[in-house]
Amino acid sequence: VTDDMKTKNQPKEESQVIKAAPKAAGPSKSAFSKRGPKGEPKKELQKDINWMVENYDGERVVMDDAEMKQLVVILNCRNTTVHIPNKVKSICVDSCEKVNVLCQDVISAVELVNCDRCQMQALGKVVAVAIDKCDGVNVWLSKASVNAEITASKSSEMNVTIPDPDGKEEDGDLIEIAIPEQFVSRVVGKKLKTEVSGIYSG
Amino acid sequence: VTDDMKTKNQPKEESQVIKAAPKAAGPSKSAFSKRGPKGEPKKELQKDINWMVENYDGERVVMDDAEMKQLVVILNCRNTTVHIPNKVKSICVDSCEKVNVLCQDVISAVELVNCDRCQMQALGKVVAVAIDKCDGVNVWLSKASVNAEITASKSSEMNVTIPDPDGKEEDGDLIEIAIPEQFVSRVVGKKLKTEVSGIYSG
Repeated sequence: VTDDMKTKNQPKEESQVIKAAPKAAGPSKSAFSKRGPKGEPKKELQKDINWMVENYDGERVVMDDAEMKQLVVILNCRNTTVHIPNKVKSICVDSCEKVNVLCQDVISAVELVNCDRCQMQALGKVVAVAIDKCDGVNVWLSKASVNAEITASKSSEMNVTIPDPDGKEEDGDLIEIAIPEQFVSRVVGKKLKTEVSGIYSG
Repeated sequence: VTDDMKTKNQPKEESQVIKAAPKAAGPSKSAFSKRGPKGEPKKELQKDINWMVENYDGERVVMDDAEMKQLVVILNCRNTTVHIPNKVKSICVDSCEKVNVLCQDVISAVELVNCDRCQMQALGKVVAVAIDKCDGVNVWLSKASVNAEITASKSSEMNVTIPDPDGKEEDGDLIEIAIPEQFVSRVVGKKLKTEVSGIYSG
């Protein structure tokens, strides 16, 4: 065996290089769906209406300045708690991992999109929570938010936690309920009848 | 403005290059979930029980030899039609893209997992179809399979097509029905009441 026969000394074939390139450079679907920081942490108000909270990792962010007419967008954060102490129009948590959002009143909705192991806790009144493409979501609802409509799609491992209606408020008794993620459909006549899967019964 | 001030003439900052590298090289979760061929096409029977149909791209595969006690696993295929002309125990389509499965009777279930734009067509009797982590699924049910139970989770753009119960069989009139992918939950007492989202009504 001469030195030039060893693999490490052989030039890479051009075809391999060409094949590898598109995988690395291409704006693939999977690259976009990654969670967590993509750059420097940034907190800024855009056009007086949109609070952007981006790229925080392992921090606690308090949004003292967010107001009732404003949206708060929490994007690409990880291991971060975002506290929004005032009433806001809406909150959107996008492409985050292990992010906790604490909010008071929210006029429109709290959305979680493309998140992994995130939580939202409503201390005030929230009327709607929307969950899309998330794994491991915990929704904590205050007594004032217990009637919130929770919309879910393409998600797994979701739970909602509420104050126990039979418990004493001062004891802080809570109930955790699984949000269904599996559904069974059956054709009936010309329509489809869809129900929560039997695995959630009982 | 001199030429070297134009963006296209500026050298790329080193920090950008360093940041880009891990995205390409890392064995990320998303890389594992990619659909389509991962090697040479292969069709083999394992332990007399498991037919593996792997890595086909742009082909038509006929599983003449598959029998009633056997499972057919279609893995990492793309743009491929797999025809299973005999009764089999179950069929599993995993990590495929644009794959069509034509089957006769299936004793247990037809499963589609982690697939993109795949179809299954039951020509015989199928009692259960399970769809998990798929986008763009079409389930074609024969008259004998119209009562099949379709279980779906973490999926989008799903449809079921059935023979029109009011149409003449020789005309081949079909009805396409959307399988719900969005659900609304609300706390009622100590439980959650979950229904198909209003977007599917009417």
